[in-house]
Amino acid sequence: MEKIEPRLLKGFRDYGPEDQLVRQQLFGKIQSVFERFGFLPLSTPVLEYKEILMGKYGEDEKLVYSFQDNGGRDVAMRYDLTVPLARYVAQNQGQLSFPFKRYQIAPVWRADNPQKGRLREFYQCDIDAVGTDSLLADAEVIVCLCKALEEVGIGSGYRVRLNNREVLSELSKDAMRALDKIDKIGMEGVLAEMREKGVPEKEIDQVAYLAGPDAATNPPEKVARVMQLVREFGIGGELVFDPSIARGLDYYTGTVFEIFLNEKPEFGSICSGGRYDGLVDQFSKQSLPAVGGSIGIDRLLDALRDTGLIPFVSPIKALMLNMDEQYNVLYADIVSYLRAAGINVELYYSSAKLDKQFKYAEGKDIPFAIIIGEEEVKKNTAKLKDLLSRTQEEVTLEELLEKLK
Amino acid sequence: MEKIEPRLLKGFRDYGPEDQLVRQQLFGKIQSVFERFGFLPLSTPVLEYKEILMGKYGEDEKLVYSFQDNGGRDVAMRYDLTVPLARYVAQNQGQLSFPFKRYQIAPVWRADNPQKGRLREFYQCDIDAVGTDSLLADAEVIVCLCKALEEVGIGSGYRVRLNNREVLSELSKDAMRALDKIDKIGMEGVLAEMREKGVPEKEIDQVAYLAGPDAATNPPEKVARVMQLVREFGIGGELVFDPSIARGLDYYTGTVFEIFLNEKPEFGSICSGGRYDGLVDQFSKQSLPAVGGSIGIDRLLDALRDTGLIPFVSPIKALMLNMDEQYNVLYADIVSYLRAAGINVELYYSSAKLDKQFKYAEGKDIPFAIIIGEEEVKKNTAKLKDLLSRTQEEVTLEELLEKLK
Repeated sequence: MEKIEPRLLKGFRDYGPEDQLVRQQLFGKIQSVFERFGFLPLSTPVLEYKEILMGKYGEDEKLVYSFQDNGGRDVAMRYDLTVPLARYVAQNQGQLSFPFKRYQIAPVWRADNPQKGRLREFYQCDIDAVGTDSLLADAEVIVCLCKALEEVGIGSGYRVRLNNREVLSELSKDAMRALDKIDKIGMEGVLAEMREKGVPEKEIDQVAYLAGPDAATNPPEKVARVMQLVREFGIGGELVFDPSIARGLDYYTGTVFEIFLNEKPEFGSICSGGRYDGLVDQFSKQSLPAVGGSIGIDRLLDALRDTGLIPFVSPIKALMLNMDEQYNVLYADIVSYLRAAGINVELYYSSAKLDKQFKYAEGKDIPFAIIIGEEEVKKNTAKLKDLLSRTQEEVTLEELLEKLK
Repeated sequence: MEKIEPRLLKGFRDYGPEDQLVRQQLFGKIQSVFERFGFLPLSTPVLEYKEILMGKYGEDEKLVYSFQDNGGRDVAMRYDLTVPLARYVAQNQGQLSFPFKRYQIAPVWRADNPQKGRLREFYQCDIDAVGTDSLLADAEVIVCLCKALEEVGIGSGYRVRLNNREVLSELSKDAMRALDKIDKIGMEGVLAEMREKGVPEKEIDQVAYLAGPDAATNPPEKVARVMQLVREFGIGGELVFDPSIARGLDYYTGTVFEIFLNEKPEFGSICSGGRYDGLVDQFSKQSLPAVGGSIGIDRLLDALRDTGLIPFVSPIKALMLNMDEQYNVLYADIVSYLRAAGINVELYYSSAKLDKQFKYAEGKDIPFAIIIGEEEVKKNTAKLKDLLSRTQEEVTLEELLEKLK
């Protein structure tokens, strides 16, 4: 038989059991926070008509995976969860109650350059409120994402950097580009670059004001209002006006924000989002202003792993060793008895050497082994071995169940 | 602005909040049963090299979604979860402990004819044990799937139809095709068709024996052994030998099974699977026999919905009405107080007419409304309205929290 080399596409990866258990736990916690704020789940297909996705992402559009399907249709894999949401809302607006608040935790695909260390398939955890122009919604989206970060263990170790696209709309491209570099080159560098590019003095003064201490304590009105509401909801982290936050995607119109981890600024923003009042309108006659945000789960996971905040705990409580295959029927009976009581028990399928079976339990981080050999069968007992302390005791089957509960 | 028509590709669908909540609950229950049996999660990419998937599915191969990516690679969207598992195991065999037991609950794509009512994107819930030839594994896979069905509410209302490919390997194609129709045309019809096709008498006798009462009470040895083990584990439903079960996919080699619902036979098989001892070997030097099975979650959901077994319960406990936007800051404060206690509360963003706000709560099946207007603000109280019984009471904020807990 000709062998096919087992390999993965560049930019794609598997998540083995340990990684995936941790991810699932994280998704579960985030989901529960989203529901605590009244967001409910939506699921949209991975494939959409290509024309639905095009014209929304600006320059990045070339990174969309697209192809012709068997029926000759131009289709594309979703690039984010926001444009499919806009399509869904426009398509179902007659049946929906507004504001329509939904979350979606699902993968997206971008044919990005993997040299940057970015994956081509990665998960987004999004919340959005469609059909409201209330700044209360802008604030609540930010607070909800902050609470999700707090829930997974970040505590107060993050900073929300908030801006409004309207603040930027008055600036020239040269001024915006210079402002965008403030983290790297500082205020002096920004001013110097604008002078070099011939930006008018009036605009230079404006940038100097926005990025200076006066605007920080007394930010533009809409930014100030959102900040007041976010503070009233209450978040653990810091909240600042930051005129250099612009968000790359074309569709943002008002509030824009990014959230960074204090201990891992090098991971870039962990959450981001903003208001996009024109997006749904591209599919709909009715105007539906919207605001939303997203957690970059892969970056968050990397950060949590780096800071040792993710302990792995096996969901499997015990391994029933296979001492002799003649007892398979008995083993089947006993594990069923334990499982019926809700205990997660694995049964080893063959009577391999005990060393191998113990090693297997260790590899899966299973804390207990159950040993039933000839001796125990005669006495109708079991040995329960704690694989961490390496102690064991002989128990009846009723005691076994009690101890594992 | 030019409008783009919001529409879905044929064979694809959205799952709105109610549908998706029910699906997520179902996935959660199934996942907990899988973990109770010692299966742990694995996640593999949606896209694979096309050559990984080809040559595994027989005739159905033409239904694989495939295309060239931006880098000119031939890629394909996963068609099932079994071939990617085989690729993963072969690729990581040095790091894995065997048997490698994993579950995966994820969508797959098939460019099937939507006229059949089949979706082109649908979820599979798979369990597999790789690296074991023990029939204990065959039995446990079947039992685990049965327990998952029982857990989601099917109780004992299902029937497992079990066979072994080795039983069929001695039969000619004509005999197999005739046998496959036994549900529709009965034993007489099967025998007649074989005679018509010129199948030799000896083979006709064999089919008559296999499909007759003697083989049913005394099935071929490996089938009998698996049946004994399944019974020892204990399942709620019925278990029968059925020589007409063949499973379409090319890769099955031993045990094959399908599970049908007693009340909904027209839904076809709800679960299916079997042993595929050669599949991993196509990617690997080391031989790794394997057995697994899958729950067709969409059919199961349809069946549960039809039998009224899926009650929808909103995860949102209360809607904080917006009586006057001047109180937004107060509302933000109170919902945060309730949420901090783990209560799922939604805040209405604008002071729309009360009718509209109540209708919104109704549309989302939210059971309680919290009303804080001028009067309540003065007294530092809230009205809590039960939206089902339409009764309401005035409470302090501490009482509000206690009542909603």
